[in-house]
Amino acid sequence: MPRRRLGVGLIGSGFMGKAHAFAYAMAPRVFDLPVTLDLHSLADVSEEAAVQAAGAFGFRHGTGDWRKMVAEPDIDIISITTPNAMHHEMALAAIAAGKAVYCEKPLALSVTEAREMTEAAERAGVPTQLGFNYLCNPMISLAKEMIDAGEVGEVRGFRGIHAEDFMADASLPFGFRHEDEGGGALADIGSHILATAQHLMGPITSVFGDCVTVIGERPDGQGGRRAIGVDDVTRAFLVFEGGATGSIEANWLSTGRKMQHDFEIYGSKGALRFSQEHFNELWFYASDDPQGRQGFRRVESAPVHAPYGRFCVAPGHQIGFNDLKSIELAGFIEAILKQGPERFNFRKGLDIQNLMEAIATSSQEKRWVELA
Amino acid sequence: MPRRRLGVGLIGSGFMGKAHAFAYAMAPRVFDLPVTLDLHSLADVSEEAAVQAAGAFGFRHGTGDWRKMVAEPDIDIISITTPNAMHHEMALAAIAAGKAVYCEKPLALSVTEAREMTEAAERAGVPTQLGFNYLCNPMISLAKEMIDAGEVGEVRGFRGIHAEDFMADASLPFGFRHEDEGGGALADIGSHILATAQHLMGPITSVFGDCVTVIGERPDGQGGRRAIGVDDVTRAFLVFEGGATGSIEANWLSTGRKMQHDFEIYGSKGALRFSQEHFNELWFYASDDPQGRQGFRRVESAPVHAPYGRFCVAPGHQIGFNDLKSIELAGFIEAILKQGPERFNFRKGLDIQNLMEAIATSSQEKRWVELA
Amino acid sequence: MPRRRLGVGLIGSGFMGKAHAFAYAMAPRVFDLPVTLDLHSLADVSEEAAVQAAGAFGFRHGTGDWRKMVAEPDIDIISITTPNAMHHEMALAAIAAGKAVYCEKPLALSVTEAREMTEAAERAGVPTQLGFNYLCNPMISLAKEMIDAGEVGEVRGFRGIHAEDFMADASLPFGFRHEDEGGGALADIGSHILATAQHLMGPITSVFGDCVTVIGERPDGQGGRRAIGVDDVTRAFLVFEGGATGSIEANWLSTGRKMQHDFEIYGSKGALRFSQEHFNELWFYASDDPQGRQGFRRVESAPVHAPYGRFCVAPGHQIGFNDLKSIELAGFIEAILKQGPERFNFRKGLDIQNLMEAIATSSQEKRWVELA
Amino acid sequence: MPRRRLGVGLIGSGFMGKAHAFAYAMAPRVFDLPVTLDLHSLADVSEEAAVQAAGAFGFRHGTGDWRKMVAEPDIDIISITTPNAMHHEMALAAIAAGKAVYCEKPLALSVTEAREMTEAAERAGVPTQLGFNYLCNPMISLAKEMIDAGEVGEVRGFRGIHAEDFMADASLPFGFRHEDEGGGALADIGSHILATAQHLMGPITSVFGDCVTVIGERPDGQGGRRAIGVDDVTRAFLVFEGGATGSIEANWLSTGRKMQHDFEIYGSKGALRFSQEHFNELWFYASDDPQGRQGFRRVESAPVHAPYGRFCVAPGHQIGFNDLKSIELAGFIEAILKQGPERFNFRKGLDIQNLMEAIATSSQEKRWVELA
Repeated sequence: MPRRRLGVGLIGSGFMGKAHAFAYAMAPRVFDLPVTLDLHSLADVSEEAAVQAAGAFGFRHGTGDWRKMVAEPDIDIISITTPNAMHHEMALAAIAAGKAVYCEKPLALSVTEAREMTEAAERAGVPTQLGFNYLCNPMISLAKEMIDAGEVGEVRGFRGIHAEDFMADASLPFGFRHEDEGGGALADIGSHILATAQHLMGPITSVFGDCVTVIGERPDGQGGRRAIGVDDVTRAFLVFEGGATGSIEANWLSTGRKMQHDFEIYGSKGALRFSQEHFNELWFYASDDPQGRQGFRRVESAPVHAPYGRFCVAPGHQIGFNDLKSIELAGFIEAILKQGPERFNFRKGLDIQNLMEAIATSSQEKRWVELA
Repeated sequence: MPRRRLGVGLIGSGFMGKAHAFAYAMAPRVFDLPVTLDLHSLADVSEEAAVQAAGAFGFRHGTGDWRKMVAEPDIDIISITTPNAMHHEMALAAIAAGKAVYCEKPLALSVTEAREMTEAAERAGVPTQLGFNYLCNPMISLAKEMIDAGEVGEVRGFRGIHAEDFMADASLPFGFRHEDEGGGALADIGSHILATAQHLMGPITSVFGDCVTVIGERPDGQGGRRAIGVDDVTRAFLVFEGGATGSIEANWLSTGRKMQHDFEIYGSKGALRFSQEHFNELWFYASDDPQGRQGFRRVESAPVHAPYGRFCVAPGHQIGFNDLKSIELAGFIEAILKQGPERFNFRKGLDIQNLMEAIATSSQEKRWVELA
Repeated sequence: MPRRRLGVGLIGSGFMGKAHAFAYAMAPRVFDLPVTLDLHSLADVSEEAAVQAAGAFGFRHGTGDWRKMVAEPDIDIISITTPNAMHHEMALAAIAAGKAVYCEKPLALSVTEAREMTEAAERAGVPTQLGFNYLCNPMISLAKEMIDAGEVGEVRGFRGIHAEDFMADASLPFGFRHEDEGGGALADIGSHILATAQHLMGPITSVFGDCVTVIGERPDGQGGRRAIGVDDVTRAFLVFEGGATGSIEANWLSTGRKMQHDFEIYGSKGALRFSQEHFNELWFYASDDPQGRQGFRRVESAPVHAPYGRFCVAPGHQIGFNDLKSIELAGFIEAILKQGPERFNFRKGLDIQNLMEAIATSSQEKRWVELA
Repeated sequence: MPRRRLGVGLIGSGFMGKAHAFAYAMAPRVFDLPVTLDLHSLADVSEEAAVQAAGAFGFRHGTGDWRKMVAEPDIDIISITTPNAMHHEMALAAIAAGKAVYCEKPLALSVTEAREMTEAAERAGVPTQLGFNYLCNPMISLAKEMIDAGEVGEVRGFRGIHAEDFMADASLPFGFRHEDEGGGALADIGSHILATAQHLMGPITSVFGDCVTVIGERPDGQGGRRAIGVDDVTRAFLVFEGGATGSIEANWLSTGRKMQHDFEIYGSKGALRFSQEHFNELWFYASDDPQGRQGFRRVESAPVHAPYGRFCVAPGHQIGFNDLKSIELAGFIEAILKQGPERFNFRKGLDIQNLMEAIATSSQEKRWVELA
């Protein structure tokens, strides 16, 4: 059976653009996907930059005109890895052209935008994928499987945090992440921990938020100072549909933390702990272990935890950050081929956007906010 | 110079009674205090129990009548280690008799009680000490010293938790900790993490709380069921006078956690992390470490961290839970002798009581509450 | 029933003298021993020092003459906490006077001395106790219980280390630990890890050693330099009677290590890991845990692990270094009262002395050495 | 400038074959290498298997005849990922054909074979690379850089271990790793830790080994039992040319351990600790940190630690096992292009083979063995 050909167009070649490019190279090999990926074009801010990045990443063409690329008939998938403010326009164009869309998180700058994008995709029937790659970790899949199988009993609570320190230095200049629309720690990294919370615990029905601006102004890059309105730290209480409660924190001032995407989930007969700092392991406490022998146990990623075995046949050898992206992409290709479900599509991204907006509203109005 | 004699009367011989008894035996030896402690009497629920405990713990007399003991002229210090509901009456009686009072936390069942006790002690001029023993840890003193010396820069945030799982089993019967007045996780263990927060970060000026009852009824011990109104889990957002913000959680359903009294404090140039699970170490991140060599470092307790060296002249050998109590008692004796300040007296306990009440009010009224 | 009175005489008031003094104060209270300990006398290098230490530690008398103290009829137990070179003479004198002898490790400077002491004690029928306090840890007892019950299956191997860094600084002057007779890392700290190995794994039947002197001379404290012949690092391979093999390392130059007394034991169906750096926990791996849920689990010390509950009724609160000494002393008093076995007596200390000598011989002669 | 084309032939498609295939896909993109890799052919045990693997991994041809492939003029690099017994013949054939050879470890079954391969490659002037991928970790490069820069002072000692448990189950049948020639834990995994020791500490000049067979026979897969002569556990003492001493252990029965490739290096003013279980971090202790603030610090991999930044521009996000292989391949391609040194070539592999043989000889003859 000949492999199906899928043409790929990638917009952006920064942090996430590179990660997408790596995934397009790796996913077919790791998962032996029944497709041939044609790395057709890479669009960037200028043709020159695009051509260079295309060469480095193995794409055939480079272009400074993403709109033209999106219209290209030989391209089936559009990857959007540009700053958040551009997701909306690009995704709508790609959807209009009938492409499958693989967009980085967060989906958009606002619920209004996110809803428009989601509804457009659903109307057009194009598959979509949002880049919540931490959810693609085999150990997160294990956590979900264990929760769903009742291995921790009735789930009672959730504590989650996403903390880094890349904004801790007050002398860093104002950047796009500080823009009032779409900026802030909640949108940038809080979206990740909300996605994890909802993925593992089910729908969130009400929130109370506290969005805090700590560094009130930054150098504007032109010798002056510029006021900042967005949050550096957001904390929120959560109520889940299933009855459990919890909290999250998003924090980009957390000095010393580079990639703390951690949670603890406790139930009536067990508990799970996870830290992205050691993301190839999951800690599990079983209350029914023999007395005097109970304790959190460190479960290391192993072939039994699919799809870890695709990367390595030996346990404990560990996958890396870019491998998460390969898993994400493989899932998306399966969805495109109708061989699997859309895992974290725009609709789910819209849920997260709703949550972020509810938390921001709650913080501003100092009241609990119910999700529709 | 002859050592001064101090007579001791201990009320209670349970978990905390035993801990006080151990402290009375150890503190004078460890700290070479210029006193002779006369372990005069131990009062318990019955004379029989009291006599037996007195024998075990090295007290001269056992009595079933704490009131009589409190009136005994040869006794200078009264230790109160009974359930919270009895602190108020006992402390007032001891204060009235002019005794120094060493009371377990939390101070009382309500702010009203706590204020009455505090004011009585201050009017009477008797030294008081509240049993927030986790604060007596040399590594907590180190944290405070580092914060005060600016080693983490401008302090920006605090995350604290006190979680255990001793109430996780829903079949455990209703007990005194479930009583509406004075019960709940916030009072029982949340008081500890609030004390730590305030001790390290300074006064708290406003709070938003969320008190959650998860297990709504328990066996009443007589074949029936009894409804529970108190919190199993309390979460709160905090604003500190110094401008920092933070959060705490108190949780006695946290399956797998036995003694998680943890915090992380981050500032503009460093961070501190602590876990009571390994309470002989403090983790310190210094932003000005050389590039590529930065990381949280594990500082182990050592003689340089007073008063660790009183217990052991070699670093890393570790003190235990009961040793914290000896440090607490030694501090109190120094205060009684006017050789040192009252460290965590009733006035500070009243602050914590105010905080607990503000959090409960906040949760009930779903609004931020300012502290007076 | 009146409590039996036991008179105590303590020789030395340094690191270990203090630890013994604390144990004499705590053990009767913690364990509710059916004895009254009469802290009769403390002997030190001078009467002045002894009187001061006696006051601090609650002993009735201080003396500069340990021989006279050993002869005192009202004294039943002699604690020896002086430098190793003095153990032999003091223990023999105490044995001759019919006292129970509680001596710090290592037992003596040589096998010859150790054998003489052991045989004298056995002939005299006096109870003896050697200060291998790390073995008194409830988590070590748990490890032994698990091994003996077959919880790790057939035991195959042992890896042990005792590493500290208190000699890492080459500018520290020559001291008694550098003396040819009785000095070196093997004697000072290697004895501990050998004791642990033998306690958990059973008799050792052959060894191959490598004793290395790294810092070949040190300041002599008088402006000159003094050559050093003893080992800074000793490594040894071990063969156990039961068929397992293993290794130990003793190292006092291990920069950054303050109290690393660690081991890992693996068997046909499980494994155990322990670190003195966190000595209130034991890590256990069970091969028959369900697939995909296997991992080392962190078992925290709890009342179920006797005698932890004597110190604290709540799990995870942790005992400290000095508490190990109280457990050791309580066991010795039970042995004196014929209520329990002698746990780590001179005979067992002689075994360790034999092992140390065999390792040194092996290193020198570069051959495997069989134990008799 | 047109990119140079390099044709690739891969022998084997198992664990390591897959890892090489991934590396050929990733390395050019991650490192933007100035080459176009033509994934020409994959050889496997049968043409059918080869064709299928070629399709999955993106190679153009599959063949059952590795000899023909090795002779193919369009192929420049031969990857050898077959069982150890075949390395010798394949490498010699590839060298004879003038190919660059990228061979998995250990180099060969014996020193004789290894020397022949090494000398053949050197005579032919073909670049070679041996698959000691753990050495390609940016954190290992950091360790080496720190040692060479004197950041731990004069290096005094090394403790290394490579432990896994994949042979712990005695019911696993006899396999190629149990063959007398080339088998055993020392060859299979001990080679890794010896390579790490030599890479970081410099040449090893003498060894004492202890090779232990624990499971003396295994099912032969045909209903019978087959005796085993190779080691399950090998321990060795090491003396380094620079004067330091150390030890290693290779162990494939270490129940619970999946990928423990750990070491600790201590010097006169600092120490380093590393565990492959968390291979994106290196622990560093600096003796000259301020008193009371000293401790092992956890340095997380970051862009400052080249070439981590090639994979990810944010610190702490972590690379995976397969990424180590990409780094290894990129280094080899640079060597082929004469843009960099041969890093771990056959000559260095021969050193390791010499060490393994010396350890085996030492164990057998029970004596220290000097390296030539």
